[in-house]
Amino acid sequence: MQTVIKSASQEVVIGPGEPVVMIGERINPTGRKKLAAALEAGDMSLLQQEAKSQVAAGAQVLDVNVGISGADEKALMLQALQAVSEVTEAPLCIDSAKPEVLAAGLEAYEGKALVNSVNGEEAKLKEILPLVAQHKAAVVALTMDDSGIPTDVPTRLAIADKIINEAAKLGIAPQDIVIDPLAMSVAADDQAGLAALQALQQVRDTFGVNQTIGASNVSFGLPDRSFINCVFLAMAVMSGLTCPITDPTVWPIKETLVLSDLMLGKDEFAMNFITAYREQYPEED
Amino acid sequence: MQTVIKSASQEVVIGPGEPVVMIGERINPTGRKKLAAALEAGDMSLLQQEAKSQVAAGAQVLDVNVGISGADEKALMLQALQAVSEVTEAPLCIDSAKPEVLAAGLEAYEGKALVNSVNGEEAKLKEILPLVAQHKAAVVALTMDDSGIPTDVPTRLAIADKIINEAAKLGIAPQDIVIDPLAMSVAADDQAGLAALQALQQVRDTFGVNQTIGASNVSFGLPDRSFINCVFLAMAVMSGLTCPITDPTVWPIKETLVLSDLMLGKDEFAMNFITAYREQYPEED
Repeated sequence: MQTVIKSASQEVVIGPGEPVVMIGERINPTGRKKLAAALEAGDMSLLQQEAKSQVAAGAQVLDVNVGISGADEKALMLQALQAVSEVTEAPLCIDSAKPEVLAAGLEAYEGKALVNSVNGEEAKLKEILPLVAQHKAAVVALTMDDSGIPTDVPTRLAIADKIINEAAKLGIAPQDIVIDPLAMSVAADDQAGLAALQALQQVRDTFGVNQTIGASNVSFGLPDRSFINCVFLAMAVMSGLTCPITDPTVWPIKETLVLSDLMLGKDEFAMNFITAYREQYPEED
Repeated sequence: MQTVIKSASQEVVIGPGEPVVMIGERINPTGRKKLAAALEAGDMSLLQQEAKSQVAAGAQVLDVNVGISGADEKALMLQALQAVSEVTEAPLCIDSAKPEVLAAGLEAYEGKALVNSVNGEEAKLKEILPLVAQHKAAVVALTMDDSGIPTDVPTRLAIADKIINEAAKLGIAPQDIVIDPLAMSVAADDQAGLAALQALQQVRDTFGVNQTIGASNVSFGLPDRSFINCVFLAMAVMSGLTCPITDPTVWPIKETLVLSDLMLGKDEFAMNFITAYREQYPEED
């Protein structure tokens, strides 16, 4: 099943037969004081740098989150979408916890955006899915609901099923839903990695939809987090992860994803890997 | 399905429900002048060091190969098995291209050895399988035959099937056969990684047997080989690899295998990973 995301001038196809699509996560002020301060001051230059550097590093879609407590997030989102569109043609993922921010962003966006996110909570389903339907967008759907984040696989699958069904009632096709089965820390629960991988596999095999996942949670509380995330990502790609929301400027993460494509026969003559490697280590040429 | 390998005093269980078993590959003079020279001079101290360091790094089985052209390999094998047994209780994998060396090694070995290797060639089947049956040993079986190394998956599967059937005629059970579906370089053939992973999956799903693989071939001809091997190994473990023949003293390789167990829910409280990490980086304690 293929999910198509579009800007005014570019189209990105996400699918199990395609190379992995990296959704750049760096346009997000959470935990980043400098970016938050620049955004609050209405200075979009740092955000534009983040957009350019992520695209240069291989991101094909950019997540845009401007949630700063106390700020006018709606106005900031419109500014940010405009600013990012000025420096890159990559399709965007409009990311906010507030439906009115998503609505304003979708209204202004030229193309077919990815919305981040809906989940199985009743309120979210009612608020977010109509926006997605109205703007013919695609949406990230987290497998959590009013009971919280399930640790088991069947509940994740049931929530995915519910969201896909509710979306269908509004005319949203499964190919416009990107499930995020939610990876949790293996330090807190040593079965959490397996549960996430099994959820990816079962969602893929049951619904055939595309999937994203925030891999970094998996290593929370452990040493050598980057390497742990890489091992998990390689296994996750094998399990049905097609479009991770990640930081493409972190070389081991990018290298893992490019190599995952190579190992799965999706990198002709290994050229994507060799090109990425040469960009990373130009001095070795 | 569980494969049990034994020394006089220890038993190692290899199986899909168990943590990955590393078979240490470093006792092998191929391409290692110093070790070759020591062996030729009858000096077993270097080989004993290799045995101890691999066990310390987590190898549960040690491969013993003393093939040096021009040397009396049979006598060397007997000396080597004795020398290794003096410094470690780990079960051994007797590795030689010569049936008479395997025969002598099996005769002398106390326990249940792993034999490395048989393949689908008619001569190999006739020479090696009776030795395995006679000594109630286990055997590594490579999916190649008189036509060479197949690049496709079905031929690998057919060769595995043939070896398992020929072994059964001699009373060798499938649990005493460890298939090696042979990874080839993705630089030479961009479908080679996928073929190896699919072969692992199909051999696992069809026969349920344990599997090994030499991961390092996969990266031949490319830069950053160690990292490529790690990505492949993580995917291979997910695909049915249960006992890689590898170098446990190379930290990224060991870390990948330990983390693969953690990601698959086989490392309670992440203690194996944390212990391995602390051994590798004691200064951070």
